[in-house]
Amino acid sequence: MTSAPPVSVGDVEAARERLGEVVHRTPLDRSTTFAGMSGARSVGLKLENVQRTGSFKIRGAYNCMAQLSEEQRERGVIAASAGNHAQGVALAGQLLGVETTIVVPEITPAAKIAATRGYGAEVVVEGAIYERSYEHALDLAESEGLEFVHPFDDERVIAGQGTVGLELLEQYPELDTVLVAIGGGGLIGGIATALKAEDPEIRVIGVQPEGAAHAGRSLAKGEIHERESVDTVADGIADTRLLETTFETMRGRVDGVVTVSDGEIAAAVALLAERAKAVVEPAGAAPLAALLSAADAEDEHVGVVISGGNVDLTDHADLVRQGLIELGRYTTVYLALSDLSRISAITDRLDEHGAGLADVRRGRRRWGGDPNRRPLELDIEGTGPDHLEEAIEAVGRIEGVSVTGRGRRTDASDDGTES
Amino acid sequence: MTSAPPVSVGDVEAARERLGEVVHRTPLDRSTTFAGMSGARSVGLKLENVQRTGSFKIRGAYNCMAQLSEEQRERGVIAASAGNHAQGVALAGQLLGVETTIVVPEITPAAKIAATRGYGAEVVVEGAIYERSYEHALDLAESEGLEFVHPFDDERVIAGQGTVGLELLEQYPELDTVLVAIGGGGLIGGIATALKAEDPEIRVIGVQPEGAAHAGRSLAKGEIHERESVDTVADGIADTRLLETTFETMRGRVDGVVTVSDGEIAAAVALLAERAKAVVEPAGAAPLAALLSAADAEDEHVGVVISGGNVDLTDHADLVRQGLIELGRYTTVYLALSDLSRISAITDRLDEHGAGLADVRRGRRRWGGDPNRRPLELDIEGTGPDHLEEAIEAVGRIEGVSVTGRGRRTDASDDGTES
Repeated sequence: MTSAPPVSVGDVEAARERLGEVVHRTPLDRSTTFAGMSGARSVGLKLENVQRTGSFKIRGAYNCMAQLSEEQRERGVIAASAGNHAQGVALAGQLLGVETTIVVPEITPAAKIAATRGYGAEVVVEGAIYERSYEHALDLAESEGLEFVHPFDDERVIAGQGTVGLELLEQYPELDTVLVAIGGGGLIGGIATALKAEDPEIRVIGVQPEGAAHAGRSLAKGEIHERESVDTVADGIADTRLLETTFETMRGRVDGVVTVSDGEIAAAVALLAERAKAVVEPAGAAPLAALLSAADAEDEHVGVVISGGNVDLTDHADLVRQGLIELGRYTTVYLALSDLSRISAITDRLDEHGAGLADVRRGRRRWGGDPNRRPLELDIEGTGPDHLEEAIEAVGRIEGVSVTGRGRRTDASDDGTES
Repeated sequence: MTSAPPVSVGDVEAARERLGEVVHRTPLDRSTTFAGMSGARSVGLKLENVQRTGSFKIRGAYNCMAQLSEEQRERGVIAASAGNHAQGVALAGQLLGVETTIVVPEITPAAKIAATRGYGAEVVVEGAIYERSYEHALDLAESEGLEFVHPFDDERVIAGQGTVGLELLEQYPELDTVLVAIGGGGLIGGIATALKAEDPEIRVIGVQPEGAAHAGRSLAKGEIHERESVDTVADGIADTRLLETTFETMRGRVDGVVTVSDGEIAAAVALLAERAKAVVEPAGAAPLAALLSAADAEDEHVGVVISGGNVDLTDHADLVRQGLIELGRYTTVYLALSDLSRISAITDRLDEHGAGLADVRRGRRRWGGDPNRRPLELDIEGTGPDHLEEAIEAVGRIEGVSVTGRGRRTDASDDGTES
């Protein structure tokens, strides 16, 4: 027999009272597109990417900091984060009149530091990697008498994140299954606490990247499993383990965990941009990736928690392109031309087939290749693999043009580039 | 004395009844960020980019087609469009059980054709440019007895678009000024009709791209001004003139028209992605561009109509990059290196300054340049012009590294590239 979980639905309801009008009640976007693609009866995207600070993290940070004693508030709080938790703590501090210090790793981009300072936090740059920043924050908490706000392993933080679940159920009462990303487990712990209390039949499914999966094994074995390392594009959920509070909160409330590849995540980022017009960070897109590839939600009403949208725009553009490649809608074609005047015939042919030309590069000649042929690289776009195939074949039928390779540049072994 | 305008607020209210639950009541996103940047007291983004079909066009198309006679419905409708109107008419037809034919120009991407067919429309590809498609659609309407649905010059279409104004005022009752893009004038005509009837003090300001500006002169002169040509990135509003119905609807209701550059539009697209997490097409971003650069909305409550989000993802990525360049947050630096092992010192220096490295290219040697120096091109990102300046100067102080040029690749005259 296990002891009572550390967070109850009463804690989540109290958090909701505390949060009041401080956070946005984010929209639920019903998506017939994603329902059609997944076979779900309906799909509702809970859009925490448009939450204040760009992610759900403000909910937990505020709920935690609002419960500090007068004395603790006067001394101030400290946190370690290069990401969403930093901004959540900083804004919560600004709203509550509490001074905040955020320790960030040395490699943190200036833009993230500026955003955190914009909410009035003092930013301390310390540590080559996050773990060092975290340790430094704990040291400062001790030496300066500051309250440390953990990103997830705290009942008050978990209860705050759980308010996402209360809102979701109000906006989407027919909910059968909810998909939630897991990093350290704070968000899913809170949501599961809220939903299981309201309706134990609702399935709560966690989603992790293949390169940072650990929670499924922890729940199956009944003890926390720790990974040695992580390797995923979804930096917001690149954790190695659950901690005690999240693990105990999740036990018996989370029904299962599925994993998704980085490619599936990139495809979800691209589809969210194209179909939902939403800019979403990789961690935020992971649950949609699961819906479209890993989870079985046939004929169900499925809630998909889009947890955040804080992604550098250049990284977002790269993810979108990678996602389109995954979806078979974007590819690189390597050509050899008898002369460069063939280019006009190539663009005409692509136009005829309705394929888009995303980029053209004068390729590099391969040693041993035909010296009388001019290399050319095209990035082309289409509606899917068959469409691209058809367009490439049509280009290959042009006199004086031959297709020497295709696919991602890094995969290309016989592509006309230097070897 | 002018005659009564062709569209009344009663028509807009009737349209709203007709639309009922067919269209989304799109969210109003309050943006403290854009209020801060513009000096407005508050800013509300009316997000028609998440409307069904990705733009407001479904409102007008549905309102028009719902009023066809039984006989007209049985014969079906036809429209000419490569864009949002096509999808609006197609979906309205699907919902009303009316067969739709859409004539698109030959260069229309396969993805847009697929989207329109996805709503059940028959797509006819005809015409090298849009005007030819338009004429072909009129011919087919005549020969096949189909009802032609004009994209804007129709009282029923204008009244449908006006429902955006009714919703906006309910969601944002303190509204002082609204900014609306103008192509043919259907959207602003409808919105102005609704808002001026509710409160004549509300200012309705139109926004056009510099390369497609015509409405300001038409309203000032009291007669329709036609441009010879258009040249703008905002393809959704690249019209040469108002037509009679929109002109008469707008007169006396639109308070002014401001213009924005393509660069300002690109910056607005980037800021909407970064701050509002919204994917917006250039036409949809033009009103925000106006708020941030051209319109005087000091201390006012400003509504910004984000009219659509249908933009190819590769084009969106290009716009975002262009926007970051406009904002002084992204630039290309041309370097000459004593040897390529200097690269590690360069990346370390950028890290120290918190500048992001978006791309690295082995540059091309310039004729007459120092043959012992290795060219390198970097695309770097930062928080603003000063930050980039500082990072570039720091790189230039590395031994064996000199900065030979900077700025956009097309502007670079002394940049180490081949001339």
